[in-house]
Amino acid sequence: MEILKVLNWRYATKAMNGKKVEKDKLNAILQSINLAPTSLGLQPFNVLLIEKQELKEKILPIANGQKQVVDCSYLLIFAAWSEFTDERKQEFYTNFEKVRGSVPDVLKNYIETIYDNAQKNPEEFFNWAARQTYLAFGVGIVAAADMGVDSTPMEGFNPQELDKLLNLNEKKLKSVLLLPLGHRDVAKDYLVNLPKLRKPLEQLVIPL
Amino acid sequence: MEILKVLNWRYATKAMNGKKVEKDKLNAILQSINLAPTSLGLQPFNVLLIEKQELKEKILPIANGQKQVVDCSYLLIFAAWSEFTDERKQEFYTNFEKVRGSVPDVLKNYIETIYDNAQKNPEEFFNWAARQTYLAFGVGIVAAADMGVDSTPMEGFNPQELDKLLNLNEKKLKSVLLLPLGHRDVAKDYLVNLPKLRKPLEQLVIPL
Repeated sequence: MEILKVLNWRYATKAMNGKKVEKDKLNAILQSINLAPTSLGLQPFNVLLIEKQELKEKILPIANGQKQVVDCSYLLIFAAWSEFTDERKQEFYTNFEKVRGSVPDVLKNYIETIYDNAQKNPEEFFNWAARQTYLAFGVGIVAAADMGVDSTPMEGFNPQELDKLLNLNEKKLKSVLLLPLGHRDVAKDYLVNLPKLRKPLEQLVIPL
Repeated sequence: MEILKVLNWRYATKAMNGKKVEKDKLNAILQSINLAPTSLGLQPFNVLLIEKQELKEKILPIANGQKQVVDCSYLLIFAAWSEFTDERKQEFYTNFEKVRGSVPDVLKNYIETIYDNAQKNPEEFFNWAARQTYLAFGVGIVAAADMGVDSTPMEGFNPQELDKLLNLNEKKLKSVLLLPLGHRDVAKDYLVNLPKLRKPLEQLVIPL
């Protein structure tokens, strides 16, 4: 049961040691995020990849000074689509046709319904897109840990300020999550040796 | 890079063959879901575990007749907390104290803030709890695949009807996702041999 070993090894890393994450590992993490399942296969989000130190420094205060943002090798920003544009819809159809030939009517109907609803209620669309993003984020965390890469799942930042800094409105994106990737600093991280905090399994699972 | 193999093996299984998922694998999947990271470690959701065929039959029409609901070995229902009750808060503190001793003031402040906000705006709390649930759902899907167990991530059901059937209102839960666990029926599943549909990586990742 490899997965339990991987999940027990990982933790929300509080201090990173500056050791660089290898390019092929970064690439496999990004590929894993791309392989996460999403509703109808739409993948309504993007991952912004930041390596430049100057840009990380600008994000630091927006992330409440959490040092992993600057001490990581790569900072991933998970951003959900704030709108379902016609361009995005066409791109989905084009990708589908390339991989599987023509789009079945039943799928096309679902996509068009989501598209129509998204024009009427973009906030509802965004909330749904954000949920898909969280799912892919979970896959990304596991992928990193599987490759011995540490990460820190982060909700604690100001998304409006980050969107402004990165002009995400123009890209019709809204940031929802940060994932700094790096390696734990065992000497400096208070959390590394603390026992994992989880509820007993019988408090999570309700047999019916 | 084991994770890529696992993610490429899995797919949203459309037909299951009735072969029983082993108890120790089910248990490891549930443990993995319990090990998923959540904001502040609150884990604001439950997993309902259904094995009884009669109950699965009742859920079938609520899930638009998707046969995996009855053909699976176990049906997991991911349900987010619709309220942050005082009992749940106390349970979190009790668990924390058992594992790590006294709750630090800074964490207590965060939890109390979320608690207060949740009383004023339960819908906002639920939406946040639902996002955490999606993350754990992603981890559960990977865990199942890692153990050679097939699953079908499902959003396509009527949550209000399901909540009513299972009296989830009483438990202050709202269903958000279904995950039937079982084994693929290679002969009957049209999807098993189709190429995986994903956008090219350069359409997902935006380097900044």
